[in-house]
Amino acid sequence: MAQKLRADAQDNRDRIRAAARQLFADHGADVGMREIARQAGVGPATLYRRFPTRQALVDDVFADELTACRAIVERGQENPDPWQGLRFVITELIVRNAGNHAFVDAIAASSEGTGAVTEHRRQLVAMLQDLTQQAKSRRRLRADFTSDDVILALVAARGLSAMGTSVRGIAARRLAALILDALQSEP
Amino acid sequence: MAQKLRADAQDNRDRIRAAARQLFADHGADVGMREIARQAGVGPATLYRRFPTRQALVDDVFADELTACRAIVERGQENPDPWQGLRFVITELIVRNAGNHAFVDAIAASSEGTGAVTEHRRQLVAMLQDLTQQAKSRRRLRADFTSDDVILALVAARGLSAMGTSVRGIAARRLAALILDALQSEP
Repeated sequence: MAQKLRADAQDNRDRIRAAARQLFADHGADVGMREIARQAGVGPATLYRRFPTRQALVDDVFADELTACRAIVERGQENPDPWQGLRFVITELIVRNAGNHAFVDAIAASSEGTGAVTEHRRQLVAMLQDLTQQAKSRRRLRADFTSDDVILALVAARGLSAMGTSVRGIAARRLAALILDALQSEP
Repeated sequence: MAQKLRADAQDNRDRIRAAARQLFADHGADVGMREIARQAGVGPATLYRRFPTRQALVDDVFADELTACRAIVERGQENPDPWQGLRFVITELIVRNAGNHAFVDAIAASSEGTGAVTEHRRQLVAMLQDLTQQAKSRRRLRADFTSDDVILALVAARGLSAMGTSVRGIAARRLAALILDALQSEP
């Protein structure tokens, strides 16, 4: 019986996180808690029992997104060719975050902030700088490239939410390919 | 006296348009009429006397923006070097529309629509295609470039509203430069 209750609670928790992720991505992080509860199909009381504040819910959803981004960067680091690794990272980060308003806004704004997003961002940027340095040392990356360009690419991809979901993935891959072509050093 | 009244009316009209332009750019075209009136410092009655429907106001603001975009494309067409002309057009359109939610959304969505925005878009795209064709014939533009890439660049620039206004212009010029580097044919 206790197990059944825990399973229901977990189920509610997952539905709330999925609804919040979608609404934050489409409309930014200032979506109302009531709207999140409605979308998740739970009552406001259930929502507030799982996530006492909106910030707790934002942190939870962003932690998931940061974990996914970190996994992408780690996979890029494992590539024996750092330029191919960097290509993979930039493309997958752009495709994953095309149209994800709230998360990209938080990443773009967190350079001066404190807290969990800022700390994770710092780690991700350090990992990217490492990959960038390696690609540069093999002369595959133009000399004026900085990790700010990766943030720029992500922020640009956020604009793609203006496109319908059916073409967004294709557009994100085209944008990534153009930016990568530009960043490659002349052969 | 009648002249004074007309001058006041024109003044109100300009303030409403300026307020609407700013709010549409920052938040998209579904901003409330009350908020526009408040921002313009006029009463709702004055707003509705000048613009009976929200659509009338949206059309008016977009017509201005389309005129500005058209002037940019025409100036690009006047350049004796079509590749330099295209560089100018893409850079200025990106810088002008970085973070302009409502207008870029309308442009991105209008490919299947009807009405004034769609007709203007069709004309602008035809002008861009002409410029593109000329740049291609001089082999300055890679062969797989299409006018859709210009729309993609504009839509990407829309994402830059996540950045503060102080860095947005710099970021927009960097994004434009990267995209243009990618679109240039190999020398």
